[in-house]
Amino acid sequence: MTGQSSGLPASLVEATAQRVMARCDILAGISASTTAIERVHLSSEHARANELTARWMAEAGMMTRVDAAGNLLGRLDTGHPDAPALMLGSHLDTVPDAGRYDGILGVLVAIEVVRLLARRDEDGRAISPFPFALEVIAFADEEGTRFGRALLGSSAVAGDWNTDWWELTDADGTTLRDASLAFGLDPEKIGAAARRADELVGYLEAHIEQGTGLDDGREALGVVTSIASARRFEISVHGERRHAGGTTFERRRDALLGASEIALAVERISRAQHHVVGTVGRLQTVGGAVNIVPGETRLSLDLRGELDAHRDAVWSEIRAEISAIGERRGLTWTVEDVHNAPAVLCSPDLIGAIEGGIRTASTSVNAPAALFSKAGHDAMSLGKLTRVGMLFVRNADGVSHHPDESVLEDDVSRCIRALAESVILLAGDHA
Amino acid sequence: MTGQSSGLPASLVEATAQRVMARCDILAGISASTTAIERVHLSSEHARANELTARWMAEAGMMTRVDAAGNLLGRLDTGHPDAPALMLGSHLDTVPDAGRYDGILGVLVAIEVVRLLARRDEDGRAISPFPFALEVIAFADEEGTRFGRALLGSSAVAGDWNTDWWELTDADGTTLRDASLAFGLDPEKIGAAARRADELVGYLEAHIEQGTGLDDGREALGVVTSIASARRFEISVHGERRHAGGTTFERRRDALLGASEIALAVERISRAQHHVVGTVGRLQTVGGAVNIVPGETRLSLDLRGELDAHRDAVWSEIRAEISAIGERRGLTWTVEDVHNAPAVLCSPDLIGAIEGGIRTASTSVNAPAALFSKAGHDAMSLGKLTRVGMLFVRNADGVSHHPDESVLEDDVSRCIRALAESVILLAGDHA
Repeated sequence: MTGQSSGLPASLVEATAQRVMARCDILAGISASTTAIERVHLSSEHARANELTARWMAEAGMMTRVDAAGNLLGRLDTGHPDAPALMLGSHLDTVPDAGRYDGILGVLVAIEVVRLLARRDEDGRAISPFPFALEVIAFADEEGTRFGRALLGSSAVAGDWNTDWWELTDADGTTLRDASLAFGLDPEKIGAAARRADELVGYLEAHIEQGTGLDDGREALGVVTSIASARRFEISVHGERRHAGGTTFERRRDALLGASEIALAVERISRAQHHVVGTVGRLQTVGGAVNIVPGETRLSLDLRGELDAHRDAVWSEIRAEISAIGERRGLTWTVEDVHNAPAVLCSPDLIGAIEGGIRTASTSVNAPAALFSKAGHDAMSLGKLTRVGMLFVRNADGVSHHPDESVLEDDVSRCIRALAESVILLAGDHA
Repeated sequence: MTGQSSGLPASLVEATAQRVMARCDILAGISASTTAIERVHLSSEHARANELTARWMAEAGMMTRVDAAGNLLGRLDTGHPDAPALMLGSHLDTVPDAGRYDGILGVLVAIEVVRLLARRDEDGRAISPFPFALEVIAFADEEGTRFGRALLGSSAVAGDWNTDWWELTDADGTTLRDASLAFGLDPEKIGAAARRADELVGYLEAHIEQGTGLDDGREALGVVTSIASARRFEISVHGERRHAGGTTFERRRDALLGASEIALAVERISRAQHHVVGTVGRLQTVGGAVNIVPGETRLSLDLRGELDAHRDAVWSEIRAEISAIGERRGLTWTVEDVHNAPAVLCSPDLIGAIEGGIRTASTSVNAPAALFSKAGHDAMSLGKLTRVGMLFVRNADGVSHHPDESVLEDDVSRCIRALAESVILLAGDHA
């Protein structure tokens, strides 16, 4: 597999990047809030974003449809009507007070890649004939903002649906079932959203990095080797609620001090391990008051590891440390294992194709940057169905899930070229 | 001053203790919660507790009124209508999920002491004629639960009111001014709640110890030598809110980890100092989420020292440590000095009278236990106006500010006798 460009004209690629930047701004305006970006699963904003994006897909040459999970799909048949499809995409939903690129960029870049590859010469012949169809998918729910469960859209496509999820409720008490019906979807048909493995060649996703690996290394693009394995826990530490004045230190069993030691142990243990990141994002005394020795403190723990083994080794160490702290301070503790997602390894073939694509979009002689994703992505679900590959685009200072999220138009241009060339390389291998 | 009993009949004293225990149970039922005791300043429960307690005061022979701060007062004139009064009392408000004796016991014991001392013989003559009037006061707010500032009731009586306090707000945003108006009080008349020094002979308060000094020493009662100096702070630690996945430890400025180090530093520094107790009673991440590096964390700090100098030396050391933590972690911090009460020394005369009273209630030949109070009390405010004395009653295992708070009926009986005898001794000195 070579890194030579197949010769996509620079002016054409630059125009696609301009279009993507403008459309990210347009989609940012489709929000539940006038002062912030918020577009959640099965909302009226979701419907409007799907409609507009479907028009853009059609304009780029695709047939479009919305599946039973609310995902929007566009398909370009490239010569072989029964051929399996290479799927490209990402998601259109957001967290509250979001940026405008997380997910959205990957959908719009995919549309431009299809536009570039669908070009025909003056005689109407495809410039790049393909052995597979091209599909673009805009997933309906990746963030899990509304119903508290992430990856609903891609789980449906991967055939990994759990019927209990229909009873998930949003902040207003509306169930996922009722919200789906109100959106015009038929929950009974959720199975039809699932794809068969033999329908797909693979799944490629471009996404902002949501980290500082590329920014620190002054690289515009990087290839993803794996998507981190993740576990989340809710930990409760129990001591004894006592009057702050009259209780000697010898008699105290202070739940907050135990929890503080746990938070610092999470940092110390996971920092010593390059393959794992650990975060206590929430911590609070329960029923605390200024003059009370805390009797209970709750904290969350988020662990992400390059491989499951890395992550689980760190958790074992943290757990042992919690036991030791509890023993020393006379505290008891409970742990609820609230989320557990194994690492998803990207396919070596797709990694190779993306590396080749990045080389054509780069002037550097160095090997493309390779990194593992510490954030979750739709590719995690798709990895259960087909081989997956991801390409990261630098975002300044790694700021994400925040209105200041940003990307450079030049980087978007490089991304579109790299992704298009990756597809061409895969077509060559597949032929 | 002798320790000889003036001969209060045992059966009479025992009956008063039974009454106090039963009334503590009745007041525990006047709560904002059906499952816990919570009675805060200017609430409807406060009004009901005042009404019922006023009936009990009247029954014991007193004239009653509610002052402009919401404090309930009962007065027994004992022969000299213009005489200054010896004031006895404590508070009726509680912390959330409180016990039933903290404050309440002191009010109910004071009513029984007045009942015993108001007895008349068959000819209607006072059995114990007094050179001063007796007043019982039930302070409206000692804990500061609702408006975050303790000792509101006794500060008003001491003439130590700050007009800024009218703008203090509760959790619902209601100001102290509006809550006072809704309670039927006139904020313009707060000055009328203040007493003149020449109206008072002194202030005596009985209270559960809220500590383990008496329980550890197997003593029922103790005399208080001083009330600890106290300071309270609200500390905000500011870092940077970031995505937990993509932000390396090197780039993090995690407000929670800084706050956790502060909490542990408070323990380490104040534990090394026998004359100071330091507690972080509340700590919480602000806007925290499982997958976000905390950008802000708030915590409370409570310091109590035997003398002001002890306390302030510890605060200087903690403050230097906070600076060092902030420096090391790239965090900024703000401190609000929300409460500052100097140590209050009890009056030697009142200490002597209480010691004498305790001797009459004790079979031991040892000197009565003497201790300093690490908890704050209404006597701290009254100390600005008149001489003060306090008597502590053993509470099992020092458990306080907790539903398990307990006292023995026998200890209450001893307390009532000791306090009544103290008053008789003071009357002898005063005459």
